[in-house]
Amino acid sequence: MLASCPEHQIDQILVRQGHADTQKDYMVDSIEDVLDSDSQLVIECMGGIDPAFEYVRMCMEAGKSIITANKALVASHGIELEALARRKGLSFLFSAACGGAIPILQNLFLARQTDQILWAGGILNGTTNYILDAMDKRSLSFEQALTEAQNLGYAESDPTADITGLDTLRKVQLLDMVAFNLLPESSFDMEGIQHIKTDDFEVAKKLGYTIRLVGRTGLAQNGGVYAYVEPILCSWSSQYAGVGTNLNLAQYKGENCGVMTLCGQGAGRYPTASAVLRDVSSVSSGQKSMLEGSCTKGAVTNDAIECLKRYFIRIDNAYFELLGSVLRTSNVIERKENEVYLVAGEMNVKEMHENARNMRAQGARVFFAEYED
Amino acid sequence: MLASCPEHQIDQILVRQGHADTQKDYMVDSIEDVLDSDSQLVIECMGGIDPAFEYVRMCMEAGKSIITANKALVASHGIELEALARRKGLSFLFSAACGGAIPILQNLFLARQTDQILWAGGILNGTTNYILDAMDKRSLSFEQALTEAQNLGYAESDPTADITGLDTLRKVQLLDMVAFNLLPESSFDMEGIQHIKTDDFEVAKKLGYTIRLVGRTGLAQNGGVYAYVEPILCSWSSQYAGVGTNLNLAQYKGENCGVMTLCGQGAGRYPTASAVLRDVSSVSSGQKSMLEGSCTKGAVTNDAIECLKRYFIRIDNAYFELLGSVLRTSNVIERKENEVYLVAGEMNVKEMHENARNMRAQGARVFFAEYED
Repeated sequence: MLASCPEHQIDQILVRQGHADTQKDYMVDSIEDVLDSDSQLVIECMGGIDPAFEYVRMCMEAGKSIITANKALVASHGIELEALARRKGLSFLFSAACGGAIPILQNLFLARQTDQILWAGGILNGTTNYILDAMDKRSLSFEQALTEAQNLGYAESDPTADITGLDTLRKVQLLDMVAFNLLPESSFDMEGIQHIKTDDFEVAKKLGYTIRLVGRTGLAQNGGVYAYVEPILCSWSSQYAGVGTNLNLAQYKGENCGVMTLCGQGAGRYPTASAVLRDVSSVSSGQKSMLEGSCTKGAVTNDAIECLKRYFIRIDNAYFELLGSVLRTSNVIERKENEVYLVAGEMNVKEMHENARNMRAQGARVFFAEYED
Repeated sequence: MLASCPEHQIDQILVRQGHADTQKDYMVDSIEDVLDSDSQLVIECMGGIDPAFEYVRMCMEAGKSIITANKALVASHGIELEALARRKGLSFLFSAACGGAIPILQNLFLARQTDQILWAGGILNGTTNYILDAMDKRSLSFEQALTEAQNLGYAESDPTADITGLDTLRKVQLLDMVAFNLLPESSFDMEGIQHIKTDDFEVAKKLGYTIRLVGRTGLAQNGGVYAYVEPILCSWSSQYAGVGTNLNLAQYKGENCGVMTLCGQGAGRYPTASAVLRDVSSVSSGQKSMLEGSCTKGAVTNDAIECLKRYFIRIDNAYFELLGSVLRTSNVIERKENEVYLVAGEMNVKEMHENARNMRAQGARVFFAEYED
């Protein structure tokens, strides 16, 4: 792909120790070779934090700009890497770490320079979206859909980060850094899709809905920032329902520009590489950073009034009474032999996630999803 | 809104001669005052070509960079203004001229630096989309929907450029300039929504479709570029159908990044101003141009195989035989008292537009729309 950009040239490719093809002198297996090279820009695509963080730090200390697709790295060490890059006058860009080919972070970065961002989020994980779409459209079981996603190369051999929502959460952290100068470190709520089953789609379908996994963050009136990951029920005519297979959809709302929606390939070899290449081009144009100010670490406030929702809940009949106060304002949607489906009255995100944790601690199997009217 | 960007400051506002409020010394009513000022950047929002072109040219000659939202100006004089800006080392940006708040031109510009753009287009006119959506969802007549759009401030008092498709066509020309270095000047095909009536939506609805107006352009295998504007029938589950009221949806496909979709406010005071402000910010960051190379003027090739479509056609019964060869492969969908609806077999865009022109020349009332399977 770099062949299409003749103004850029790859000097070296760092591979794992002992894996360098000795016939290819551009292949090196030691970070020392990279540090000693004349390259001004290093693209980190190792993934994980160890040794990626240390390598990136050393490259920056050696005066090399960094482009990375590594969301775990940016979510855990983004603030110090940004500070180091600024101190050394280097570029530090990470477009490919959120949304794949979708230039959500760069657009958010540009928008916030002239607009007040109110919220951001969307469908940010292609693997879970593929699973949900397959369960809905083809009535596959969770396990069948996951296996299919793995066979197609969408899901990792260990898909835990995807299905628990952790991957989405990290991307939300990146949105927060770019939109609000905040790296949320604690008190966010995260519910993945590991508790979902095919029956849930059937009940949702009768109500005119399908199910998606979303991450959301935004400014709360109380002055804080909310941030969470959870499944949502969305109507068939909604933009979210139209996002099939492994696509991603990312949105933000600016006070002036209104709601902006970007949809495209959220993962995959060429889409991710295209995002990296756009960053290479941005570095050439002189862009140093994707952050408008100095990020601070902090907590989020998911009990804000912006987080008031109704929830669609499935719980075992035997644990029905556990719903307690949640139950009082709930409408029962459907009773099955062992389970009951209901739509609960308004509560905030923090309450719902706490309720689910409590019910599960007592042995109940629970699925819940935000319910859009 | 500029108050939110303290790093930028308005020196002067040029109003029509005699309309300057003498209490406000920043209001001037003569272009000479602008030319004599120290401002380095002029934002042109007059609209129209005369005197906007002459004013912009004079500002550039006086060493001032230009941001404009004026699509007619860029589509007619963009090449010479770009050349003048380059010669003088000035910036010339026009984000707000296509897609309103949607940063389609800037994203296309960035994408094409590292990717091969294959096609671009979408729903690019908010007024016609509002009319189509209201006719479909609330069964308004064309005239009722147009009046409503005018009362809401979406449609101009003279809505000709919107409803004939000319406004969309100019935006397609801008997409061509940014994506393909081409300003198409002739042989494009343009069909607006002036021939549509509420019955057409009812027939489309029975097939599971609604109607939208789109502009499209792309690379043809024959080496040319196709570009046209026409109504399309799109299924209720498509992204296009989900674009309601006065929203816009713009897309492009890159060889590497795949299909990218951007959706948002296509018009309106704050959205358009937000696009202008983003350009102001880009000029501050040193961006000179939205064009990657030197544009050339040229024709388009709408008889390319990429332009082969099936068409949904309504024609008066009395003129049914005029369909001639078109008819041979057509399926009649519905016969009404005076009209017949059919879906024609494959033909290219150029053929269909020629057929419609010929039929209308003989007195037939015809509506047609691209038919997505």
